[in-house]
Amino acid sequence: MVCSGRNVIGASMNKNCSKPENTIYLCSPVNALVEGIYEENIPFSEIKKHGDFGLGTFNDLDGEMVMLDGTIYQITADGTVNTVSESVLTPFACVTFYAPLSHDIIEKETAYEDFLGFLNKLLPSPNLFYAIRVDGVFASVKTRSVPRQDNYRPLVEVAREQPVFTMQDVEGTLAGFYTPAFMASASVPGLHLHFLSADMQQGGHLLECRPCSVKVGIQFLSKVELSLPMSLDYLTWDFNRDVAGDLDKAEK
Amino acid sequence: MVCSGRNVIGASMNKNCSKPENTIYLCSPVNALVEGIYEENIPFSEIKKHGDFGLGTFNDLDGEMVMLDGTIYQITADGTVNTVSESVLTPFACVTFYAPLSHDIIEKETAYEDFLGFLNKLLPSPNLFYAIRVDGVFASVKTRSVPRQDNYRPLVEVAREQPVFTMQDVEGTLAGFYTPAFMASASVPGLHLHFLSADMQQGGHLLECRPCSVKVGIQFLSKVELSLPMSLDYLTWDFNRDVAGDLDKAEK
Repeated sequence: MVCSGRNVIGASMNKNCSKPENTIYLCSPVNALVEGIYEENIPFSEIKKHGDFGLGTFNDLDGEMVMLDGTIYQITADGTVNTVSESVLTPFACVTFYAPLSHDIIEKETAYEDFLGFLNKLLPSPNLFYAIRVDGVFASVKTRSVPRQDNYRPLVEVAREQPVFTMQDVEGTLAGFYTPAFMASASVPGLHLHFLSADMQQGGHLLECRPCSVKVGIQFLSKVELSLPMSLDYLTWDFNRDVAGDLDKAEK
Repeated sequence: MVCSGRNVIGASMNKNCSKPENTIYLCSPVNALVEGIYEENIPFSEIKKHGDFGLGTFNDLDGEMVMLDGTIYQITADGTVNTVSESVLTPFACVTFYAPLSHDIIEKETAYEDFLGFLNKLLPSPNLFYAIRVDGVFASVKTRSVPRQDNYRPLVEVAREQPVFTMQDVEGTLAGFYTPAFMASASVPGLHLHFLSADMQQGGHLLECRPCSVKVGIQFLSKVELSLPMSLDYLTWDFNRDVAGDLDKAEK
């Protein structure tokens, strides 16, 4: 193992009974987004009832979303970062009330493949969801965002033209989830992480990174809440096409 | 259309805010059951927090479960029906708080294929879940139950030896759900119905029926709550095998 990970178990379970504990909330299944349904008109005020941490996008696929400590950030296709009000609308967001069960440390520059291996070793089973938050300094981070789109253009086509951003020696946070392969119609399978720099000037959907000195928090999520949209687009769509290949291309 | 269905819209939404409204709850994903994980030790006291209507099975695959108006019935492999206490354990149950949005009527003897066509016409989109309850008189009902099993014997093998029951001129209730195809790892895709006779002496997993005079209630379910088991069996299982073929055979 390249990484010098110290396991510092520090359970901090969510004590507030009014919040769903260790639950991943999806406001729509990701297969709808993959098909090009970019308008579901779900306000972030609704999303925030279900979490303070997560990722997603905006109506018209207008950039990448990352939510940290209850604040919603938008990374648009020109690379700028905006904070977003609760009245803004989304077709896809995935959130939880973040309460990590464990913290691990990486203390030296680590190649992306080794970082992925390190993360995967922290997940005891491939059959649960996990929230993952990585805070610290990165030698490099490569992200993409997505340009605002009309509906019905499949995500895989949009992603072919994605603007890519490369940051060097940057402090910031990766936020996201691990999803079991058999839940791929609901959420992006495997690791799915978005980045926001500490100065809140850069970010996006993670393509690659080289962490140097970071703290990795992991939360086990054994409950799933999935809302199905009631829009005409969603209700009348033919989802029989297998979108796994599209999703794999669109997320990489 | 063979059936003379009168649409009698009679919305009766769940007004009790403490109950999750129009939510399908699954205590584990059905792919675990298909693989032969027949012990998850989830008590029905937990299941009843999430619904008063539904279907499922029992630990060790000990028969078919149907829940009507909050009472849990077990149809064992010898065809007998028992009511079941809340301390009994289950590896798989699927429930909701039943509050139908519409009622439709069938008033003449109807072939099974026509009955399925009638039900499918009542579901406006293939991309939602629905709870379905059919009360009335049937010219015939054919069901199966499953014999108590050790763990790890795939459901498709068990189903090859299933005892089959045929009832004639029977009054009773079908209870179950429609699941979108893209959620097949979580719940049995398409229509999945269990039967209980009005005298509570017979029942099982529906294979075929010929309704004569029945009332069909439909509830739209646009929210999904899925719990993932924390058992060693579940956490360590390799779910990469495609179980769709098995599930199709096991349910028919």
